[in-house]
Amino acid sequence: MQEEKTVTLLEEVRRDLEEKKLLALRRRIEHEKAADIAELFEELNTEEQILIYRLLPKELAAEVLVEMSADEQKTLIDSFSDFELRQVLAELYSDDTADLVEEMPANFVRRILNNCPPDMRRSVNELLKYPEGSAGSIMTTEYVRLKADMTVSEAFDHIRSVAIDKETIYTCYVTDAYRILIGIVSAKTLLTSPVNARIGDIMEEDIVNVHTHDDREQVARLFDKYNFLALPVVDNDDRLVGIITIDDAMDVISEETEEDFAKMAAITPGSEKSYLHKSPFEIFLSRIPWLLLLMVSATFTGMIITSFERALAASVILTSFIPMLMDTGGNSGSQASVTIIRGLSLGEIRLGDILRVLYKELRVSFLCGITLSAVNFAKIMLVDGLLLDNPAITPLVALTVSLSLLVTILAAKLIGCSLPILAKRLGFDPAVMASPFITTLVDAISLVVYFSIATSILSL
Amino acid sequence: MQEEKTVTLLEEVRRDLEEKKLLALRRRIEHEKAADIAELFEELNTEEQILIYRLLPKELAAEVLVEMSADEQKTLIDSFSDFELRQVLAELYSDDTADLVEEMPANFVRRILNNCPPDMRRSVNELLKYPEGSAGSIMTTEYVRLKADMTVSEAFDHIRSVAIDKETIYTCYVTDAYRILIGIVSAKTLLTSPVNARIGDIMEEDIVNVHTHDDREQVARLFDKYNFLALPVVDNDDRLVGIITIDDAMDVISEETEEDFAKMAAITPGSEKSYLHKSPFEIFLSRIPWLLLLMVSATFTGMIITSFERALAASVILTSFIPMLMDTGGNSGSQASVTIIRGLSLGEIRLGDILRVLYKELRVSFLCGITLSAVNFAKIMLVDGLLLDNPAITPLVALTVSLSLLVTILAAKLIGCSLPILAKRLGFDPAVMASPFITTLVDAISLVVYFSIATSILSL
Repeated sequence: MQEEKTVTLLEEVRRDLEEKKLLALRRRIEHEKAADIAELFEELNTEEQILIYRLLPKELAAEVLVEMSADEQKTLIDSFSDFELRQVLAELYSDDTADLVEEMPANFVRRILNNCPPDMRRSVNELLKYPEGSAGSIMTTEYVRLKADMTVSEAFDHIRSVAIDKETIYTCYVTDAYRILIGIVSAKTLLTSPVNARIGDIMEEDIVNVHTHDDREQVARLFDKYNFLALPVVDNDDRLVGIITIDDAMDVISEETEEDFAKMAAITPGSEKSYLHKSPFEIFLSRIPWLLLLMVSATFTGMIITSFERALAASVILTSFIPMLMDTGGNSGSQASVTIIRGLSLGEIRLGDILRVLYKELRVSFLCGITLSAVNFAKIMLVDGLLLDNPAITPLVALTVSLSLLVTILAAKLIGCSLPILAKRLGFDPAVMASPFITTLVDAISLVVYFSIATSILSL
Repeated sequence: MQEEKTVTLLEEVRRDLEEKKLLALRRRIEHEKAADIAELFEELNTEEQILIYRLLPKELAAEVLVEMSADEQKTLIDSFSDFELRQVLAELYSDDTADLVEEMPANFVRRILNNCPPDMRRSVNELLKYPEGSAGSIMTTEYVRLKADMTVSEAFDHIRSVAIDKETIYTCYVTDAYRILIGIVSAKTLLTSPVNARIGDIMEEDIVNVHTHDDREQVARLFDKYNFLALPVVDNDDRLVGIITIDDAMDVISEETEEDFAKMAAITPGSEKSYLHKSPFEIFLSRIPWLLLLMVSATFTGMIITSFERALAASVILTSFIPMLMDTGGNSGSQASVTIIRGLSLGEIRLGDILRVLYKELRVSFLCGITLSAVNFAKIMLVDGLLLDNPAITPLVALTVSLSLLVTILAAKLIGCSLPILAKRLGFDPAVMASPFITTLVDAISLVVYFSIATSILSL
């Protein structure tokens, strides 16, 4: 695999740099993939980066810039003369330039736009208008457009003449005089059709398209569902305004996935830098907000316990079941919430499904609750009572704990499945309603349930 | 977007079925995408599925079969005559047939292989030899192979003649007489090169390839990194044996991602059916094992509390901080574990990085620990002590809780980051070492720390 390669490359590049063998260095890296060079750059200091970047062939240099983190991009662009910047920008696709510009401070944006070729400046400005998270914001305007009355051989001539500037030539788009999308034809179809066939006769007319304002994650999921390589984007008047290619869709999916993972672990999603390249302070900053918030909200669970102080002092055995109750409640809740959050992300569950989901979770929580309560009752009587010979264990104590467990699980599952849907309905990200938040809420509920049942059954 | 479409399609199909308008039904669905028809089938009963399946054009029928769940595939295949089965199999790619066979019981496998065209049977048997989870198990043997001494126009003739049976024609593979991979040429390069150019002169020789035994998830991640559409797979002698296409790579990524999400929520990954199509009992079965295991392991936390019974009876205020301590410890631990588990999955963190990771988490946990302890100390004195006017709150109690919090966070982060790496080193899936497991472990540690500090500071 590729792992060892970058390490060796780093060592070789370091040696070349020390021995000032720039020509050898250039020969060594000019055939590497852009992603590998960007990875290499993460290990180098700024001077080394600038020095090596100048050695790269123009096209590769542009690709490497796209693969870098925003901080590194800024440093590099800062080191460019206007001439160098123009050279790099000329090699970029407009969607990559738009992505670049989005991450930069205002003075960089002005400088980049001033050095763009005029038609790219126009498309970049166009792309920047679409709201973040929309299909429009990830599309490219560089696609191959054909006319229905072209022949296959005319189409090939056209493709040949524009191929160099297009992000993909494997799916071509057929539009009418009003730029309305009327068909799609793949390079495979073109290659296997007679050279004098009309495009209008061989094009696919059952088109899946998306709108500029559609959610970018839902759009990206369509690639997985339909095995597309590209997807056309139309405006409100059904005019073709751009396409989304599969590499950008994959980027969206992995970005959104990692964001979901982070939120589920109570981490505020930060920069796209990889873990090993983040400073401890950066990691601290992404972790401390939720820890603080959740810690302070645990004040309430503390207050609940304090208010049942007398009951607890009378029967310390009750305290020993608090961790089990809280953890099982938390785990039950996060099972439901993670399932629903992913279902919403993947588009398998929709907002209108809330009643179906609630009914299903109700049945699941009964099955889980009854099983766990029964096992728990037996465990308390046999292990804690008989085996560990704890005189405080009575059937009534076991009943109290098991009943509380049942109610806690019911509450946890129903809260766990409904909060993410509710959050989405209110326009928030459902992933915020993930395990840590649900756990804190379920803790409070399980304690109230536990103490209420305890005071009435054990008459404390 | 597509959501509403399937609903309407379902209604229309149901109406056609009721009114027995089979011709209209056929016309309605024959232009739908395979993924949409498979989704539609999930809502239909077996008789309806079998009836509609027979109406589909051959090629679409094969595609729909690939998109269905294993249970539905079994029912359908069971309803096929041998003639029908042969027709469907003739339209499948060998990797799809191999996937199909893998999910089926032995008698189905025999029947499917007996009805495969002979050369497909050979490749399917070949593919089935590769272990689950390997690159070999997800590759296809249907790729375009070119020779270095062909001209571009000869290459096009060859592509045209074989295109129909190949999974992709957009990346072609150049091999020597021993089937060793020596170059790659994209359809874009072919289209933009002079027709009499030699393939050997225009092919790309810096090839990223993978081995049949490489891990399929790591291989799939390469598509994201390098923006590939396909990736060649070679055997131990560097001979080209197959290719992996981007659609299969995306499937692997989403399968592995959902498995990670499930494990992190203490769910045993089950069938690929979507949530709404699983029965409550199926959901129950995937959730109960971990809930049971984690519930029973909470016996230890209970035992710890019981053994400090005397201390707790003397100072009930200590009990009120147990939920906060446990939750903050659990959250701190899962922040670290989720970060490391994802880093390992994405290949950003390697096994050899364990010391770097530990050192980094040590610094992060100090920053988090000091901040949270300080805030906690202030909060206890001000809110619990002054505001809620609890006479049991003393500076020594606040100190006990805050010190325990600091130690708990240090322990939680270090356990959270090292257990996933340890699991991977021992050959287990790191995701099993996720939040629920870590939480249970950290609970026990935090209680022992808490009571030890409490007994010595408060001399209980």
